[in-house]
Formats: sequence, C-alpha cells, structure tokens
Amino acid sequence: MQKKKYVVGVDIGGTSVKNGLFDENGTLIDKWEIPTRKENGGDTILKDVAEAIEANLAAHDIKMSDVAGVGVGVPGPVQGDGFVPHCPNLGWRDYHPDRVLSALLDGIEVKAGNDANVAALGESFKGAAAGVDNVVMLTLGTGVGGGIIIGGKIVDGVHGAGGELGHIVVNPEEPLACNCGNHGCLEQYASATGVVRMARRLMNSTDMGSSLRGIADLTAKQVFDEAKAGDELAAKAVDTLCMYLGLASANVAMTVDPDEFVIGGGVSRAGDILTNGISSYFERFSHIIHKKATFKLATLGNDAGIYGAAKLIL
Amino acid sequence: MQKKKYVVGVDIGGTSVKNGLFDENGTLIDKWEIPTRKENGGDTILKDVAEAIEANLAAHDIKMSDVAGVGVGVPGPVQGDGFVPHCPNLGWRDYHPDRVLSALLDGIEVKAGNDANVAALGESFKGAAAGVDNVVMLTLGTGVGGGIIIGGKIVDGVHGAGGELGHIVVNPEEPLACNCGNHGCLEQYASATGVVRMARRLMNSTDMGSSLRGIADLTAKQVFDEAKAGDELAAKAVDTLCMYLGLASANVAMTVDPDEFVIGGGVSRAGDILTNGISSYFERFSHIIHKKATFKLATLGNDAGIYGAAKLIL
Repeated sequence: MQKKKYVVGVDIGGTSVKNGLFDENGTLIDKWEIPTRKENGGDTILKDVAEAIEANLAAHDIKMSDVAGVGVGVPGPVQGDGFVPHCPNLGWRDYHPDRVLSALLDGIEVKAGNDANVAALGESFKGAAAGVDNVVMLTLGTGVGGGIIIGGKIVDGVHGAGGELGHIVVNPEEPLACNCGNHGCLEQYASATGVVRMARRLMNSTDMGSSLRGIADLTAKQVFDEAKAGDELAAKAVDTLCMYLGLASANVAMTVDPDEFVIGGGVSRAGDILTNGISSYFERFSHIIHKKATFKLATLGNDAGIYGAAKLIL
Repeated sequence: MQKKKYVVGVDIGGTSVKNGLFDENGTLIDKWEIPTRKENGGDTILKDVAEAIEANLAAHDIKMSDVAGVGVGVPGPVQGDGFVPHCPNLGWRDYHPDRVLSALLDGIEVKAGNDANVAALGESFKGAAAGVDNVVMLTLGTGVGGGIIIGGKIVDGVHGAGGELGHIVVNPEEPLACNCGNHGCLEQYASATGVVRMARRLMNSTDMGSSLRGIADLTAKQVFDEAKAGDELAAKAVDTLCMYLGLASANVAMTVDPDEFVIGGGVSRAGDILTNGISSYFERFSHIIHKKATFKLATLGNDAGIYGAAKLIL
C-alpha cells in the first residue's frame, strides 16, 4: 500500500473555520474558509467542516483513503484524550470533536487540540520558530492566548489548562476583574483591549499631555503608533504591556525554560517596539538564567492554526 | 545475557552525598552517605562517589556488570545533555559529571539531573505522587527549589533552568534583593529564612503583640508553631508565605497544568497548615481552571533525591 500523501488542518474560530490541505511535508496546497454555525449547541459545525473537506478533496481529485488524518484546533480547553468539557465559544459541552469528525470522514484519524496550543505548534513547525523544539507562543489579540511546545510536543496539561498564559496573575492588586472573574490576569494588560484601557487609565489619572486625548474610539494600533511617534503617555501604556509580558515570560521561563518565545496575534503587528520592550523586562525578571531565550514575532499570521493542526497528524 | 538487576541513585549535596542501591523495581536495598569534598574545584567528589559505590557493591557481592547505571542529582543547573556550565555549590565549571563518573565505573551508563528536578521525579516515582505522571514539586528549605515532571519526564529546559520555581518573581516591588540579585523572588517569602524575615518585618513595622517578640534566634519552626497556637502575627507571616506559594503555583498550573503539587523540604514539616493555606490561595489565583490540581506533602524526605536519581536510569 502506498504511503498516505495528504493531511488537513482545521482551525475552528468563533466566526469562521479556516482549513488547509497539506502534503506529507507540511507544504500548503490549498486553503478555504467556511462560516462557524453555532446554533443548536454547535451541532452542525463539524458536519459543515466534513462536507467542505470532502468537496475540496474531490476538487483536487484526492481520495479520502489518501489522507493520513485531520488535525483540529478548538477555541477552548481540550484534554489530552481529545475530550472538550466545555467550549462556550462554540456551544460544545462534553464533546469529543475528534471522534465526531472521524465518524463523518470514513473513520480516518482526527486529533484535536486547543487553538492557541495548535498555533504555537504551527509556528514551531513552519513559522518564526521553525525547527525549534522548545517554544512558547503568546498570542496577543482581544485576549491573550498561550501555547507551549516542549520536545516538539504540545503541553496540554491534565485539565486542559496547559499554556493558559493569558490568565497568569501578574498583579493581584488590580481592582478591575478579568473576563475570567479573577483580578490582575496578564490578559488585562497585554491584549489589544488591555493597552487601550491602560492608556485611558493614564489619561484619567494624570495631566500628561497626549495626542491620544480626544480620540473617541481609541484602538491598540493608535496607542502603538503614537508611542512610536514619541508620545509619552502612549509610550507608558506600551511600557506597562511590555513589563507585564516580560514578567510573565520570565516566570514561564523559570518553569519550562524554552529556546524561543514567539509573539503573535493582531497586537504583534506593532513589531519591534514590542519584542524589544518585552526582551528588556524579560532580561531583568529572569536574572538567574544566564543564557536567555529570544523573542521573535510570529510569521504565519492567521495560518498558524492550520499549520499546527496539520502537524498534529504529521 | 541476564537482565541487569541493580541501579544506584546518587544525590550530591553541598555537605554530603547520599547514595542508594536499588533493585530493578526501585526498591531500596541499602543506602550510605559520604562527605562532599569541595577542594580543587570539586575534583575529588566523583572519585569519592565511585569508590564508595565499588565498596558497597563488593559488600553486597554485586558485580559492576549487574548494574544498569547510576543516576546523579546535582545541586545546580544541568542541561539536557548532562552538561553542567557552573555549579557554585560544588565548584564545578564546564563539567560533564555523567561522563566523568561513567569513566570511573567501567563505562556504565550515568545520567545527571538537577537535584530539585530529581527529587520531584523521586516523589512521582515512589513518594507522595507515586504513579502520577504530571507533578510539580516545591522544596521549601533555606531556599526554594522546584521540579517539574510532565508525562513522567523531567522538564529540564533548554538552559537548565526548567523548574527554577524559587526564582519566579511574585512581587516586583520588593525592596530587598534575593540571593540571585533579583527582587521579589518566591524564595524570598516561601523559604525558612523568608518566613522568619516576614515575621521580623511585621514585628518591626507594626505594634501587634506576639509571642515571637523577644526570641533572639527566631526559626521557621517557631513561626509555624506559634501560628498554629493562634498567634496573630505568626499567622500573618505564614499567610504571606502561603499566598505567594498559591500565586506561583497557580501561574505554574496555567503553564504546565499538573495533576498534583508536592510540597517538600524542611519547611514542609509544618504540615497541613501549609497545604491548606496554599490550596486556598491557589483556588483563588487559578480561577479559570475548573478541575484543580491537589497539594500533598512530600513523603520521601531526604531520600527523594536518591529515588529520583535511580529513576533516571530505570
């Protein structure tokens, strides 16, 4: 029998599902996107995914028996055995997406993982940390996600909370509550919403002049752009974000001590101001580690998830 | 050829080297202790270890060829390949203890690991977490050591700093410096010296009455004993220790999400007051994790190191 030549990577998000068809070396052959239909407890999502996979394989004249398997990134905790206890983003509860999707695709192998973990695997497979086996990825978007790769494998944790770096508590004194209900999570400072909140807090609590004052719908991009342009208040908000990211990264380094940190997500488009700022605080907070991990910007963008999902199978 | 029946576990400390002879199931057959001679850059330590192993095997009528190998715990960072860049506790620098000891013992297999990591492996092998594959151990002594076992294996990290949990920064505002030079490391609060320092700080900065006042050479044991007896100031010092341990443990759980935390070292003799206190803060700081890791007291005491060292080979 001939070796199976293809794998499919699926990255399920709250509004759309990204899909990639890869060859056995992890080279992307084709990609497509379908809407995420969340009605009926997310019951139709995997049926839609299966149908689109079948259609795409047919278009490429590929038989299901030539596909080694499908990897799936899920926007919520996934236990080591593929079980999803609860995924509010999709409506799933006590669900085994790997088994459900496999049954829909002639029983081929399906493996599921948390989306942030899978994105980290993608960046360590074909992205900023290609070929690096010990990588921590921080995804800075509306929230903050994390993924940890040790020895080339995802650390998913016993309760599916491995790499939940956005909820590392960096400031127990924080008066505001995080979305998770806790106080002082990294996500409250290091996300797009976090850096805007910090800028607003500085505007409300100080007299500092700033070009940010008077902007009604302030965005994270504006805060970073003004910081780069020399605005002191914006720079201070960015510095706070970098400080907490440097602190959390140092504490993660004292735990799993990776080779490289990869910074991704929408906020990472700010570029070097971010990696330079984080590195400098990391240096200070990881005093005891002589040879240090480096910080790089993610390179796969929104495709990190499909690459990582494919790698779950490859 | 017959299967090799024995392994030796060696735990090198700053003042003495503990050694254990184990059978293939990890049952301790005999143990012995020799002084650590640190002169000449620690050059004689492994010669002494090798001689004592040979003498002990001879006493048990065991041939070197029946020994599968020797595991060694080292009080400093050990890289994944066994290389020790610098170990101030022993005087070693750019040293390969595994290769040196193997050459002294007819070329049998030798594996080295950091002592705190090796102790964690010991507790997950035959101690408080026997049979548990995902375990984090915190050793509370003069300092604070840590060890992380994921999937039954030590996470030693790329730069040998995996599990350096004593140097997780829990309070960047701390004015005093840690031994490592940083400010606000867990070790500054959660060690024997840390809880005494906290009690003194409370005595100096408040008017609280306390049975600890007037004790010249205050010990950690006295602080814990008085806290158990209801002394408010002592209880506050213990509470601070538990708070920072709960915070650091929660942040470690958000990183590697273990099944169990094991608390060992001299301070752990304080007992339930410690595990209950830490658990309660852990609960608060790990809000996002629904099913939680549990906290247990270590059970192997000073033998954790030799058991873990033996497990490096078994």
